[in-house]
Amino acid sequence: MRKSLLLVMAGLCLASVCTAQEPLVIQEQGSFLVGGSTLTDNGEFVFSDLWSQSGQTAYGDHAYVWYQVPVNAKKLPLVFLHGGGQSKRTWETTPDGREGFQNIFLRRGFTAYLVDQPRRGEAGFTLASGDAMTPMYYDRTMFTLFRLGRWPEYYEDSQFPRDKASLEQFYRQGTPNTGPLDFSVVADSIAALLEKTGPAILVTHSQGGGAGWMTVSRTENIKAIVAYEPGGSPRLFPEGEVPEAISTSFGLIEGTAIPLEEFRKFTKFPIVIFYGDHIATEPTDNYGSDQWRGELALGRKFAELVNKYGGDCTVIHLPELGIKGNTHFMFSDLNNIEIADLLSKWLAEKGLDK
Amino acid sequence: MRKSLLLVMAGLCLASVCTAQEPLVIQEQGSFLVGGSTLTDNGEFVFSDLWSQSGQTAYGDHAYVWYQVPVNAKKLPLVFLHGGGQSKRTWETTPDGREGFQNIFLRRGFTAYLVDQPRRGEAGFTLASGDAMTPMYYDRTMFTLFRLGRWPEYYEDSQFPRDKASLEQFYRQGTPNTGPLDFSVVADSIAALLEKTGPAILVTHSQGGGAGWMTVSRTENIKAIVAYEPGGSPRLFPEGEVPEAISTSFGLIEGTAIPLEEFRKFTKFPIVIFYGDHIATEPTDNYGSDQWRGELALGRKFAELVNKYGGDCTVIHLPELGIKGNTHFMFSDLNNIEIADLLSKWLAEKGLDK
Repeated sequence: MRKSLLLVMAGLCLASVCTAQEPLVIQEQGSFLVGGSTLTDNGEFVFSDLWSQSGQTAYGDHAYVWYQVPVNAKKLPLVFLHGGGQSKRTWETTPDGREGFQNIFLRRGFTAYLVDQPRRGEAGFTLASGDAMTPMYYDRTMFTLFRLGRWPEYYEDSQFPRDKASLEQFYRQGTPNTGPLDFSVVADSIAALLEKTGPAILVTHSQGGGAGWMTVSRTENIKAIVAYEPGGSPRLFPEGEVPEAISTSFGLIEGTAIPLEEFRKFTKFPIVIFYGDHIATEPTDNYGSDQWRGELALGRKFAELVNKYGGDCTVIHLPELGIKGNTHFMFSDLNNIEIADLLSKWLAEKGLDK
Repeated sequence: MRKSLLLVMAGLCLASVCTAQEPLVIQEQGSFLVGGSTLTDNGEFVFSDLWSQSGQTAYGDHAYVWYQVPVNAKKLPLVFLHGGGQSKRTWETTPDGREGFQNIFLRRGFTAYLVDQPRRGEAGFTLASGDAMTPMYYDRTMFTLFRLGRWPEYYEDSQFPRDKASLEQFYRQGTPNTGPLDFSVVADSIAALLEKTGPAILVTHSQGGGAGWMTVSRTENIKAIVAYEPGGSPRLFPEGEVPEAISTSFGLIEGTAIPLEEFRKFTKFPIVIFYGDHIATEPTDNYGSDQWRGELALGRKFAELVNKYGGDCTVIHLPELGIKGNTHFMFSDLNNIEIADLLSKWLAEKGLDK
């Protein structure tokens, strides 16, 4: 038994002892809170008045981080930032129970830092007052917006599993904002995390993309950005070069101007931006498809400008590679190993997987 | 290198290759949402009205679960349920960066399921409307209530680290309710989890203790309960045998009556309840110390009744064993290995560590 175990752990696989999945060998794992701030009530503290906020301090606006370091880890860790209404769960097990990017890239030797951004998930303490919590009635909107299909029909080639249990896991994996959404607060916390991790590769999804771009001016430790469908969050362009806003059935998709000197920071490291399938090429009332028509156009423009100023930004629109049916959550889609392979290939090309 | 790695992974330790901590070898890890319910708006769904809840369904009141299965795992997993205002972070890295019960018991061969209870952390979607989120000004209250000391002084023998960074981590590790606190909803989700895990040992902390007791009538899969300072949550007694409520400077500590037939379910498996230090023996204005005077008294009464009806319930008050200075969070205190050893010993005595 001991011998079989050793062989499995060493990555040697004998037919007689191999299980479906080899064990993960983790050198270190744990969690911490990072960044954030405090507020102190200026009343007088009275010991016996235990439920009064008078004179007490509130802690909040930090990020929660779960990390795992595999044995013989590669030099640059991956820092994963989720999208809107999501938590680090995004990167964990897929809705149908397969391994997500967390495990996949641990197996490929990368240290993984998974973030719950400030005012979300296990980083719920806010220093700004927010809305009351209510049930979130939006399953049909999510189905369409995240491009599983056009509700109630899946796209015929959709890479989302068809069983009801997977769809339910998907609907349940979100978690609400516990305070106002503030991209600066998120970017501050990611910058604080990167001061702790040292040089790292930032991997963002959707709304997290904007916070990711905003982190660039706050730290020197970003060595690459991998953005999966950045959108619904700040789209940064040099002053005077903000492209025309695009009207979609989802709403207006528009850029934000920043000084050219700040924009030039995007040229200091390689960037790759991935987009999935079923993105409209003409205006349509399918707002899921139409939003990403606008986002993709602005993403291409962003890449063009980064490259114009000497940077290295690649846009990968999966259908152009013949990879069809991917949703907004391509890293947990049925073909997520193929999606991971594309990232591995890019990381290797850029020398980021040493 | 390969050879050294093998030796380390095999648990053989050569002076020349040993690191401070040996790697964790994880057969499987991941996350899922479990339990919960749905609500459907009875309006008419209109595709184009994407932000309207009309005719849409809300998912919520589930638990979030992170699990890790070590290689050669023991038969019964540990299911960890956090306390009030906390998340699964409770069981992870300690405030001063050491390993918490999650890693300690993985190293001892136990599969660990870590829960964010419904309406908390990464399980934030609520099906009942809750309060608006505001900053939580209560650092001094927490310091006293959780028995680090009597604010602003630590107890001289406190097992909480004295540095400022650890205290800040501790204050930040909480996360608010995102809906009304409902112990039935929590117990339902834990029962749903146990249907998935099969027979298991439930480990609760503080407020989680009450939900833990309430789970017993909802599943046959609890094979033991380990409760760290259950309190601030339902304290269950047989009808006619509810002890007199105890008035403390924290508030009234009182039991809840349940039918004897239901109470008898607590006699079907072994239970151990741990209490830390600095629990008052006489009424005091130190509400942290005084609350637990009441909780400990009712805990002892609970054990007495479980045993009277043929059960096996042990109360361990650490100072009686000569273990001093423990806070309300003894499993992350400076001596948490010693605290874990006590649990291991108890599990072995009860044959629960096979």
